[in-house]
Amino acid sequence: MRIKLLGTAAGGGVPQWNCNCPVCIEARRLGGRVRPRTQSSAAVSADGSTWFLLNASPDIRQQILDAPALGPGNSQSRGSGIAGVLLTNADIDHSLGLLLLREGGRLPVYATDAARETLTTGISVAPVLETFCGIEWIQPPLNPEPLPKADGSESGLVFQAIPLAGKSPRFADAARAKAGADCHVVGYRIHDRSTGGGLLYLPNLAEFEDHLTPLLADANAILFDGTFWSDNEMIERGVGTQTATAMGHLPISGEAGSLARLRPLKARHKIYVHINNTNPILFEDSPERAEVERAGCSVGSDGTEIVI
Amino acid sequence: MRIKLLGTAAGGGVPQWNCNCPVCIEARRLGGRVRPRTQSSAAVSADGSTWFLLNASPDIRQQILDAPALGPGNSQSRGSGIAGVLLTNADIDHSLGLLLLREGGRLPVYATDAARETLTTGISVAPVLETFCGIEWIQPPLNPEPLPKADGSESGLVFQAIPLAGKSPRFADAARAKAGADCHVVGYRIHDRSTGGGLLYLPNLAEFEDHLTPLLADANAILFDGTFWSDNEMIERGVGTQTATAMGHLPISGEAGSLARLRPLKARHKIYVHINNTNPILFEDSPERAEVERAGCSVGSDGTEIVI
Repeated sequence: MRIKLLGTAAGGGVPQWNCNCPVCIEARRLGGRVRPRTQSSAAVSADGSTWFLLNASPDIRQQILDAPALGPGNSQSRGSGIAGVLLTNADIDHSLGLLLLREGGRLPVYATDAARETLTTGISVAPVLETFCGIEWIQPPLNPEPLPKADGSESGLVFQAIPLAGKSPRFADAARAKAGADCHVVGYRIHDRSTGGGLLYLPNLAEFEDHLTPLLADANAILFDGTFWSDNEMIERGVGTQTATAMGHLPISGEAGSLARLRPLKARHKIYVHINNTNPILFEDSPERAEVERAGCSVGSDGTEIVI
Repeated sequence: MRIKLLGTAAGGGVPQWNCNCPVCIEARRLGGRVRPRTQSSAAVSADGSTWFLLNASPDIRQQILDAPALGPGNSQSRGSGIAGVLLTNADIDHSLGLLLLREGGRLPVYATDAARETLTTGISVAPVLETFCGIEWIQPPLNPEPLPKADGSESGLVFQAIPLAGKSPRFADAARAKAGADCHVVGYRIHDRSTGGGLLYLPNLAEFEDHLTPLLADANAILFDGTFWSDNEMIERGVGTQTATAMGHLPISGEAGSLARLRPLKARHKIYVHINNTNPILFEDSPERAEVERAGCSVGSDGTEIVI
């Protein structure tokens, strides 16, 4: 399976349009200590020609131009290598790109009921897209199933959604979100039937849940929520009032942080993605970056491709 | 007045993500005969520090990064040179960027009642943004009035909206749009109080209306709808079923086309913008490009700045 990191930043990207934090200043300098990053998305393929997007970011137009395999190829007047989109949630940074695929054919989109409802009534991505290409909504399976191409044939991939205790977008129906009965956030586990290689995709993780332990132990590649280094990061930088945890993201550092969980894992690739512009791991020479790398993990950057 | 062309392509940009037409193929080749272009937007300023966006395209994140004057400047942790957005209509390529400004302060947006309603009920840009920064809706004046900064002080610019016989977005309320009582499309006339320089901004023009004649004669700079070269362009390229006219765009060529109208005008800058990827004027060496230039007009490209 080929895995392309299309965008590795959280909402707003790096640099964020209106932000002058030390990370964003450095990211604006060509050749600086912070690489610019677009918003969170990846793509996977077993055969190198049929690709599935993992989330659809607002930067998808540029991301597709930078990854020609996702474009129209050589033989069609219009077309694309994209066979479908697997959404982990309905946040703007993960879903607005659906509207930017409106010039194509009917779009298969995998999403939970709650994410689908949010994209229909909370933000009208679905009804608007219906006046263009339209969405073919598909509920992702909770047990491994073949991931079909648009024509129904096998893609060579097997997938399942991993329900997570996540946060609903703030534009989701407030009453329903509060009831907590809905699953607003999932991760995905994707296997290649030929190589056996397995990916665990968890760009939004609010807390560590026990059912993740065997999945993490089994994966060859892990793309993990790297939004914040510490719980108080937004407050300390003076750009927010909420903790990482309150915003639905387990911080990297600390005894209960994600790095402590990832350190002992044997996966060949343990990569942080969905990284917020406040996160010091974005500095290539920071102590926090060094600590991540000492744990055998890496900081995702746009354009990276791995094969498992 | 400084005028920045942030994006000069129509919806989808050049190249469009899924398009293999001759223009898009050439635009994907670095140093080819077609320059890549992002989606339609411009910015104007009298003092070089307070800027008004003319439309907010889906590519706005990249456009702001490429135009540092619109970014946070040097002195603030977060901030922006953008004092407001003047919308000509509610099409996705002109309005979706509003959602990408959600991390900033409350956003002054000038739009007609019909565009505002479309952005509230047709596509839920307004209610979603209300859960972030929120929109300060302002109806643009039909007669010249000072364009204020966010703090109410004078920006040095005077502006007015020019109502146009345009087309509603397809996701607008169908019954209301059919009734035709609403004004879905405007242009803008913007003057600098010091220099007297005047801009006429008309990126969506469905048909030539007589009230435009004196406005065109008076302008120093004209940014004009350059979507299509010919009326049957989309059909001939096999990528659409509608004529330019039916899609709300006066074609450039022909006796009744826009080039015949622009040719005799004395304005120093007569620039086509909002150019669709099917339009042969995008080839730098095409006969159509040469014809545009012989008429004293030019083909807009991203990053161009003019001063009037």
